[in-house]
Amino acid sequence: MIGPVNTPTERVRLTEVRDGAAVERDDEVAGEEPLEVRVEPFPARPAERFRLAVTMRTPGADFELAAGFLVSEGVVRRREDLRQIAYCTDPDEPQRYNIVHVALAPGVPFDAERFRRNVYTTSSCGVCGKAAIEQVAAQVPRRPVGSFRVGGELLGSLPGRISSAQRVFGRTGGLHAAALFRPNGELILLREDVGRHNAVDKVVGTRLLAGALPDHGTVLLVTGRAGFELVQKAAVAGIPFLAAIGAPSTLAVSLAQAQGMTLVGFLRSGRFNVYSGSERVELDPVGAVSR
Amino acid sequence: MIGPVNTPTERVRLTEVRDGAAVERDDEVAGEEPLEVRVEPFPARPAERFRLAVTMRTPGADFELAAGFLVSEGVVRRREDLRQIAYCTDPDEPQRYNIVHVALAPGVPFDAERFRRNVYTTSSCGVCGKAAIEQVAAQVPRRPVGSFRVGGELLGSLPGRISSAQRVFGRTGGLHAAALFRPNGELILLREDVGRHNAVDKVVGTRLLAGALPDHGTVLLVTGRAGFELVQKAAVAGIPFLAAIGAPSTLAVSLAQAQGMTLVGFLRSGRFNVYSGSERVELDPVGAVSR
Repeated sequence: MIGPVNTPTERVRLTEVRDGAAVERDDEVAGEEPLEVRVEPFPARPAERFRLAVTMRTPGADFELAAGFLVSEGVVRRREDLRQIAYCTDPDEPQRYNIVHVALAPGVPFDAERFRRNVYTTSSCGVCGKAAIEQVAAQVPRRPVGSFRVGGELLGSLPGRISSAQRVFGRTGGLHAAALFRPNGELILLREDVGRHNAVDKVVGTRLLAGALPDHGTVLLVTGRAGFELVQKAAVAGIPFLAAIGAPSTLAVSLAQAQGMTLVGFLRSGRFNVYSGSERVELDPVGAVSR
Repeated sequence: MIGPVNTPTERVRLTEVRDGAAVERDDEVAGEEPLEVRVEPFPARPAERFRLAVTMRTPGADFELAAGFLVSEGVVRRREDLRQIAYCTDPDEPQRYNIVHVALAPGVPFDAERFRRNVYTTSSCGVCGKAAIEQVAAQVPRRPVGSFRVGGELLGSLPGRISSAQRVFGRTGGLHAAALFRPNGELILLREDVGRHNAVDKVVGTRLLAGALPDHGTVLLVTGRAGFELVQKAAVAGIPFLAAIGAPSTLAVSLAQAQGMTLVGFLRSGRFNVYSGSERVELDPVGAVSR
């Protein structure tokens, strides 16, 4: 495997205006470049590859992002499902670091048709939140288990830890983060990206490559909001506990409930909301009494 | 046309934990449901429809969202390119309000192949930020014009106006907003969604349906961050001025510069950064002197 040449941030020239006064200066800006994920099934005709997606991402942890994306899409579940992950192997291609080839292991099914966007539709309609939730249930072999509990005070301390761990954030203010914790508050890993979905895919892909999926004993924390797709990504990775700094959506709450997951929103020091799975949140003695 | 039955927010039951004490209560949560956009070219074989995308969106302004999405994807440019927009017409289909059928006007070209995700790839690589920028240039007939200037103080006042106009935001804290202003600060319209991209598509679609595209004389303000795709959406709609409450990305800055657009980030009262097109920002007298 070869290292990336793209950088997570770049310096740009800008005009800062403060109280009507303008100053020209340089500043770090979060990197954003397209990443194309290609899948090579096995067995395949020679060099048969499918472009699964192009996502705008912050360079860094590209293999992990590609792997996590394939977990989220239901293509792979375990490290053994992968034969190889590599950048584009054409040495004359200047954009090789924006293309990740993923070769599937023998026997891993791949249904290219499922990834066609413009399916010729029949008269039947049928897209709905309920169907989306059922689709996730079909994708997840078992409900996320994880019988651990997290103390409320410890939970409130996690956003602070994420901030101090966000190396890049301090410089650009432009990156979302996803962080994986053990129930005792130990930080397992943190990944950043201009997109929250990518940050979560990077976390999930890192765990896949470490052979740690399904990840039943962990808590995933995301900056920003928790929509359906973030809960879906956690569910598919087997993570039973998702906490967000921001608000959840209706469908995120419904999916977490259907999957028996814990969903926490508006997480900050001393205050948070539990939308699903409150049995995994341990109230501090005072709270337990007042309850 | 028929009205939507989905609601932009729903009440959910939650456990609020504050300083260790738990209280069960209801709260409004931002709605999220899938919306499928189908396109019917003209001429077409009977009932030939292509599923262009499924997006998770907050119900409301669904026709506008579908229209704006088609503008962003380069399928339509003017109101006249549309023959009809309607929800799924099967009255027995319970999910009809999650499906929008867009019929194109005669003569509007539609290349279904372009929307296949899993194009069988050749050995050539080639996805890169520069190519993405060139693709936008090919999509935009002329650079956004718009020779207006916006005063710095007025610019700093826009986030406050967006907050007071965000009816839903106050209740859920979960919705992104995109707002279109005239250079004198007059609010033209505001749209909300769990996704920033959707909020911008709703704005652009509303303007398309009003016959107002290309929208050269306006300023688009978005909550959150400004990535490549938001600048692309503004560029394609002809909007020459994009301001964001949050940070821009490198590719967003490059695209704005290539398109001759103004890009403002970290916009708040009394302070903001101009990353491109500073000629459209009028400094207040003091600032002009100190410059």
